[in-house]
Amino acid sequence: MIIVMKPDSKEKDIESISRLLEKLGLGVHISKGTQRTIIGVIGDKNLLRDIPLDLLPGVEKLVPIVESYKLASKTFKPEPSVIEIDGVKIGGSELVMIAGPCAVENPEQIMETARKVKEAGAKILRGGTFKPRTSPYSFQGLEEEGLKMMKDAKEATGLLLLTEVTSERALEIADKYVDMFQIGARNAQNFQLLREVGRSRKPVVYKRGPSQTIEEWLNAAEYIMSEGNYNVILCERGIRTFETATRFTLDVSAVPVIKSLSHLPIIVDPSHAAGKAQYVAPLARAAIAAGADGLIVEVHPNPMCALSDASQQITPDLFSDLCKDIRGIAPLLGRTFTAAC
Amino acid sequence: MIIVMKPDSKEKDIESISRLLEKLGLGVHISKGTQRTIIGVIGDKNLLRDIPLDLLPGVEKLVPIVESYKLASKTFKPEPSVIEIDGVKIGGSELVMIAGPCAVENPEQIMETARKVKEAGAKILRGGTFKPRTSPYSFQGLEEEGLKMMKDAKEATGLLLLTEVTSERALEIADKYVDMFQIGARNAQNFQLLREVGRSRKPVVYKRGPSQTIEEWLNAAEYIMSEGNYNVILCERGIRTFETATRFTLDVSAVPVIKSLSHLPIIVDPSHAAGKAQYVAPLARAAIAAGADGLIVEVHPNPMCALSDASQQITPDLFSDLCKDIRGIAPLLGRTFTAAC
Amino acid sequence: MIIVMKPDSKEKDIESISRLLEKLGLGVHISKGTQRTIIGVIGDKNLLRDIPLDLLPGVEKLVPIVESYKLASKTFKPEPSVIEIDGVKIGGSELVMIAGPCAVENPEQIMETARKVKEAGAKILRGGTFKPRTSPYSFQGLEEEGLKMMKDAKEATGLLLLTEVTSERALEIADKYVDMFQIGARNAQNFQLLREVGRSRKPVVYKRGPSQTIEEWLNAAEYIMSEGNYNVILCERGIRTFETATRFTLDVSAVPVIKSLSHLPIIVDPSHAAGKAQYVAPLARAAIAAGADGLIVEVHPNPMCALSDASQQITPDLFSDLCKDIRGIAPLLGRTFTAAC
Amino acid sequence: MIIVMKPDSKEKDIESISRLLEKLGLGVHISKGTQRTIIGVIGDKNLLRDIPLDLLPGVEKLVPIVESYKLASKTFKPEPSVIEIDGVKIGGSELVMIAGPCAVENPEQIMETARKVKEAGAKILRGGTFKPRTSPYSFQGLEEEGLKMMKDAKEATGLLLLTEVTSERALEIADKYVDMFQIGARNAQNFQLLREVGRSRKPVVYKRGPSQTIEEWLNAAEYIMSEGNYNVILCERGIRTFETATRFTLDVSAVPVIKSLSHLPIIVDPSHAAGKAQYVAPLARAAIAAGADGLIVEVHPNPMCALSDASQQITPDLFSDLCKDIRGIAPLLGRTFTAAC
Repeated sequence: MIIVMKPDSKEKDIESISRLLEKLGLGVHISKGTQRTIIGVIGDKNLLRDIPLDLLPGVEKLVPIVESYKLASKTFKPEPSVIEIDGVKIGGSELVMIAGPCAVENPEQIMETARKVKEAGAKILRGGTFKPRTSPYSFQGLEEEGLKMMKDAKEATGLLLLTEVTSERALEIADKYVDMFQIGARNAQNFQLLREVGRSRKPVVYKRGPSQTIEEWLNAAEYIMSEGNYNVILCERGIRTFETATRFTLDVSAVPVIKSLSHLPIIVDPSHAAGKAQYVAPLARAAIAAGADGLIVEVHPNPMCALSDASQQITPDLFSDLCKDIRGIAPLLGRTFTAAC
Repeated sequence: MIIVMKPDSKEKDIESISRLLEKLGLGVHISKGTQRTIIGVIGDKNLLRDIPLDLLPGVEKLVPIVESYKLASKTFKPEPSVIEIDGVKIGGSELVMIAGPCAVENPEQIMETARKVKEAGAKILRGGTFKPRTSPYSFQGLEEEGLKMMKDAKEATGLLLLTEVTSERALEIADKYVDMFQIGARNAQNFQLLREVGRSRKPVVYKRGPSQTIEEWLNAAEYIMSEGNYNVILCERGIRTFETATRFTLDVSAVPVIKSLSHLPIIVDPSHAAGKAQYVAPLARAAIAAGADGLIVEVHPNPMCALSDASQQITPDLFSDLCKDIRGIAPLLGRTFTAAC
Repeated sequence: MIIVMKPDSKEKDIESISRLLEKLGLGVHISKGTQRTIIGVIGDKNLLRDIPLDLLPGVEKLVPIVESYKLASKTFKPEPSVIEIDGVKIGGSELVMIAGPCAVENPEQIMETARKVKEAGAKILRGGTFKPRTSPYSFQGLEEEGLKMMKDAKEATGLLLLTEVTSERALEIADKYVDMFQIGARNAQNFQLLREVGRSRKPVVYKRGPSQTIEEWLNAAEYIMSEGNYNVILCERGIRTFETATRFTLDVSAVPVIKSLSHLPIIVDPSHAAGKAQYVAPLARAAIAAGADGLIVEVHPNPMCALSDASQQITPDLFSDLCKDIRGIAPLLGRTFTAAC
Repeated sequence: MIIVMKPDSKEKDIESISRLLEKLGLGVHISKGTQRTIIGVIGDKNLLRDIPLDLLPGVEKLVPIVESYKLASKTFKPEPSVIEIDGVKIGGSELVMIAGPCAVENPEQIMETARKVKEAGAKILRGGTFKPRTSPYSFQGLEEEGLKMMKDAKEATGLLLLTEVTSERALEIADKYVDMFQIGARNAQNFQLLREVGRSRKPVVYKRGPSQTIEEWLNAAEYIMSEGNYNVILCERGIRTFETATRFTLDVSAVPVIKSLSHLPIIVDPSHAAGKAQYVAPLARAAIAAGADGLIVEVHPNPMCALSDASQQITPDLFSDLCKDIRGIAPLLGRTFTAAC
């Protein structure tokens, strides 16, 4: 941390800050420039976490030097993390496809989707059972009933299961059925819920909030990790910008940026970013080409009849085509992607 | 709702959509323009909520005509709502000041703040007891212990109490102590929590999420209202934009926009928008001048010693000066603001 | 400037950077922290302007300490600048109102507007004569013919004249008629044009670009000032955000931020920010309450018949009401505002 | 165009609007819903361009049905445009690479870059000769001298030439040397300049402004096309968002969106979007995978010595590697990409 002093700061301001830092056990390094004096703080900046240095007399601003997240940083763990669940590895050389309907609607729908996405190459079945919807008057999910349908689909296909949890209660129920939890964009800063999934050891697909900077996202991942659950898979799903041609703006740059800052795997959700089925495949290809470790795609056997987010779900056939594209791109990036059949 | 057909849509596409709408009990009105045919849908558009009209053959796009929120809209209730708690009215002609520290820290701190903000003109004491913080390593609040300190401050001063709730558990505990709940920006789309406070009848200060459009905000307020709690006070607290000179960008226009769309009261939080104490007073004055029904301001007897958000808290003296400014602006807007003393 | 070294940087990287800096005549100050080594650069950072320090081996990032603009900064000139044109002072204790139609349309329209806005308290008449429009098929302005009509209005009322210039040619023509130039938001980064107005000595109302940070705005103002024209009046007119309820989002915080960083006067254009006449007055009041030095407001005698931006222009009567509000707020801020009559 | 009436609009309001429309030669179609009456306007909406319908009594809002740009739209020309310059086709099945330094610095630099990018597969040499820089104190370009150096590089390699023009004067000079013009992001709404390049017949690479919506971008392209120059190549180069880990946020979705709305070719500039050399290759691959017709990449023989934008320029070797990646992805998208050697 660096403390930049105001042009008109006094010698005694600098001295009193130095004394304070030393009292806290921190080293002090003063450097007088032609326009400003700066004070370098040496040692654990967490000792300063709750001290408002920027309010001290003569202080212009504080400049952090080291990132504020720890467990998620590459400094903490330089080699990439590979998260394994029952033989499926996320973050390794094999690309991982997660697919399934926005919402579980009935046994036939989820079973048919499961069979088809498995055939195309998916390893994990997603299905919404607790749905956070923009309007309270929209379909809100089948909850435990839906989870049971997913369980049947797992038994029939061997796919792993992923569902979004929106509350402690949902987490408790889902825990009985699924292999992985999802924290959705709307709960990206629901720190209470992040802590709860942190107490589990099941992998968590943690979606970026639509207005979260990458740094805030990594800081919030720390809520999960600091509770002991290191199995965090980051998921970029579009940020909120002024552009309205797509539902959100896919920040495809987040993929290489995360790779340079963190050891955690990163996957991409092109469906929510696009909001329109026709843009899902181009964005999915772009994400893989940028280096993502996998995708999470909304697939519905009959999008026209979907009870939620119908416009952004693609058919199993289109998903199968997309998987073929991914298979073509994978080797260019030193990755593999193999279909079940 | 209007359905815009593609330039190359077929007559039979239009017919099949018409039949579908009529089967649902909706009226149909077809209008052929020089470049596009449009279909006007007459009747309750909620009948269409879960039907993906935009996926039907020949459809280019859907255009909503009526806003999707109901209970929060001026169409539903044209006159402004005034929310009363123990004689304090929010949304009436009297401006309401809510003030207090970011976090309750100890009995002396909250008591001193309470006395001073009351003297300056505040009617409601805010105090954070369950703190959602960007980093898990920061101070997280005194929880019930802090609420007891607030209760003592209420007994001594007569101020009403407001605290943020971040989970069902927090809500249950806070319910025993406070007069009003706050939903913070980070939980703005935590629909589960919105429903929970909707089951209470205590007033809710509902802060806008940093990437929520005004329309989404009103739709989400509907989660609270549709559970029966109509005592919702909207709070603008800055949105996330590219500008970094302030912590968030105060969307002061949201004040007149809300006034034109909704009957709910709207207050402004200049402290979180600014992120810096020096900008709190100008933004607070701007908010009132734009027509806000009140303010929520972070005040700390000694910001330099604050355990959280120190940089944006102002001293009781500065708060008192701000109240004087507000007293001057109020009559220009046909409002009143009277100090306790 | 501070150079932050990577955690794994080598001693020789630090040495070679030090040598480079010293060769350039700069001082070097090395500080070794527990996680990073930082190198403080002492002296004129402009010597480094075209040297890509961030590409040198071992360098993680560069942290600027001193702002990159000079002439516009408070460090350069601590006291506020007051810009005077024929007795009208902008940036002094008197608030200044600039008003007039979006576009000059005919002699009667501009004459009537001039008389009425003068009566209400305006000192400067604005009128668009070279119009940059979103679509090439919209009305593009009367050019020199319009300027002549403005000149007549000046002779009749004594108001000073302001028009937007969109090219060198427009500047040359306008120079014969007006007292001040405006650089519009769309040309905010047309550096060529900024230099051109910089070669004039007439005051320039320089509008912020809709995606310009405050720091970029001050840097770009430097293009005008570095050519010798210090008579720059900054104008906040809304930034581009995700919110669509208003045409742009008025960044009212820019007012106190500019006041803390620069000596230049700042005025606000509530008309373009709002995009709707009904929001102009609340935003105008907010701007003044936040500390703006004046306003530029679109006023049209009959907005219904306006040839451009009809929706955001207010009538002379509404403008007169707004001026009365401003007169009420002014003294609270230690400012004055007097009407012509 | 649809006119939505207020809930409390009167019968006579509807009648007077109908009469006005009919007088203008437009058809009228009235549709009464349960909550709102809407008026469909049939015919050329340009007849209404300068009539402020939204100000008429009883009108709530206007809803455009047909897009406002014409020549750039797929409705106007459904098949993709292929722009040919001396045998190089942009928008056809062959992907096109444009590469070269941010700024032309000296004869050796541009000659060496030209030879190497040609070898890697580029067909067009870019080089900045008129540089719009954030600060007036930065290097501003060699102007005509630089163009002469580019001309020599063309003679030696056969590459076509592209340079950015920032003013009428620059355009006039550049016209003598280059095969294509570039309009940079900062001049994206400099309509005067757009018209000027519209009067040329040389192809124009038109970069999106950092806060331009896709619709505004297409509307502004209309400024070029309406002057008769249909050889417009759109270029996505990142938009301004809240994320600061990259210089801008590459809106990769713009590629498929443009393909669905317009017949114009679209290329991507990953260098300016990223702002950091390390992210250029991932973003470049993503752009091609999303369907872009080509790339424009900043390449410098020795980025460490570059006089501008050093951090985002890649070496010829890295460019060559990138071209190999592109060659791998191309066939998956039904495209080709062949190197010169």
